[in-house]
Amino acid sequence: MVLELYLDLLSQPCRAVYIFAKKNSIPFVVKNIEMLKEIQFCIFLSLLPTLPESHLLTWLKGFTPGQQYSEEINKVNVLRKVPVLKDGDYTLEESTAILLYLTRKYNTPGHWYPPDMKKRGRVDEYLAWQHSTIRPSASKILWLKVVIPLFLGHPIPPEKLQDATEDLNNNLQKLEDKFLQDKPFIVGTEISLADLAAIVELMQPVGAGWDIFESRPKLLEWRRRVEGAVGKELFMEAHGQILNSTELKNLHIDGPMKAHMKPLLMKMLK
Amino acid sequence: MVLELYLDLLSQPCRAVYIFAKKNSIPFVVKNIEMLKEIQFCIFLSLLPTLPESHLLTWLKGFTPGQQYSEEINKVNVLRKVPVLKDGDYTLEESTAILLYLTRKYNTPGHWYPPDMKKRGRVDEYLAWQHSTIRPSASKILWLKVVIPLFLGHPIPPEKLQDATEDLNNNLQKLEDKFLQDKPFIVGTEISLADLAAIVELMQPVGAGWDIFESRPKLLEWRRRVEGAVGKELFMEAHGQILNSTELKNLHIDGPMKAHMKPLLMKMLK
Repeated sequence: MVLELYLDLLSQPCRAVYIFAKKNSIPFVVKNIEMLKEIQFCIFLSLLPTLPESHLLTWLKGFTPGQQYSEEINKVNVLRKVPVLKDGDYTLEESTAILLYLTRKYNTPGHWYPPDMKKRGRVDEYLAWQHSTIRPSASKILWLKVVIPLFLGHPIPPEKLQDATEDLNNNLQKLEDKFLQDKPFIVGTEISLADLAAIVELMQPVGAGWDIFESRPKLLEWRRRVEGAVGKELFMEAHGQILNSTELKNLHIDGPMKAHMKPLLMKMLK
Repeated sequence: MVLELYLDLLSQPCRAVYIFAKKNSIPFVVKNIEMLKEIQFCIFLSLLPTLPESHLLTWLKGFTPGQQYSEEINKVNVLRKVPVLKDGDYTLEESTAILLYLTRKYNTPGHWYPPDMKKRGRVDEYLAWQHSTIRPSASKILWLKVVIPLFLGHPIPPEKLQDATEDLNNNLQKLEDKFLQDKPFIVGTEISLADLAAIVELMQPVGAGWDIFESRPKLLEWRRRVEGAVGKELFMEAHGQILNSTELKNLHIDGPMKAHMKPLLMKMLK
């Protein structure tokens, strides 16, 4: 049975899994959650790794504006978040676990997860570190600049962006100083899962209109090397949707959904 | 050169590393940051995995109440957070990366990180999941119930605890329903790094006076199995400090430190 990947390419960890599987010629089928897209659930599925899981649960629990949503909610509730891997009857969540599973099952080239103990430790260190640093801070920019204004119908006050901008800048500095240093890639001369996990996160604020590479020549050079290593075409294919922010901004959100989401979004803005 | 571990057992990931190294008879020396303890920095080092790194940096940047702290601050700033492993000239941060490094370097028994691809995926999945769920929500209870009142000089209003309590309860439910299910341990019949990483987090609210196991018989049974598997004595040795909340509550915080911390803590309480 062919591997199934539940993906939405607006989601940064989904893009990492997609790029990795394609680049390594792993046979898989993508399961899109198209039906959900129609009612904009996809936005939440895609972007919700930015929020603690429990917020999603709280939100889903309370979401009953119309009977017509119940079936879709059940589906979301089973999946909870994307990406999800299904390999026969084995289901695996969490992008870093999925990436590691793929390296083992398909015996991908060693540079992705180097057998050298110290380099492997460096990859693990980055994969652990990013969960509570780069990931939430980069995603938050997209929420604040694109998603929340979609629901509120107007941009958020600039001062609300200030903390989020400072957070992301601190984390980018740490990425440069501690992880990248003066090496071509995070573990040395070759690309690893750490670089892939990092680049997809940094494209969320870019999708929101803040080109974080503009003022960071070291990160820009690294981005070019990562794009070169995975292939420019594959990189752009995976990032087409997130980089088309006009399309994002034109999504239609219906009245009941807006009304329901408003309290949660206002809480996020506090 | 013997392995050095920079630990503070008030910190939950430090306890995981300590228990793992001791249980597997790995030779190491503990580097305590005793000097910092004198000025209560240890509390922040120990508990700060609950906060995004950048908050720590922001706080350190602004912390200049007295010249006498500068040397200690430099040391903290190098380490940033605990635990840290030093193996000769190789330094590794992030507890999950450290635990994985130890399994490889010391070839520890397979149950900790099972060679079976699907079980290993399950460990990776838990280790990834906990970063933005169990960890912040369990630690936050200790902050709200113990650490913040220490600085403010009075308990926080009960309604401030409500969101944090709900968050942790949602995550505990997910731990039971998705990860533990009806198995003795997270990956099946034997203890793994996932159980170890989980139990140490759940002891933070217990240290704060909320016995989260009281109303959860399934988790309580699992806790007993985990304690049995690592050894009751070692478990209690590692948790002695966090379970002695009276000692925590009696820590003396000096005036300039209180004044400096207050704005940050008020921000956390918002």
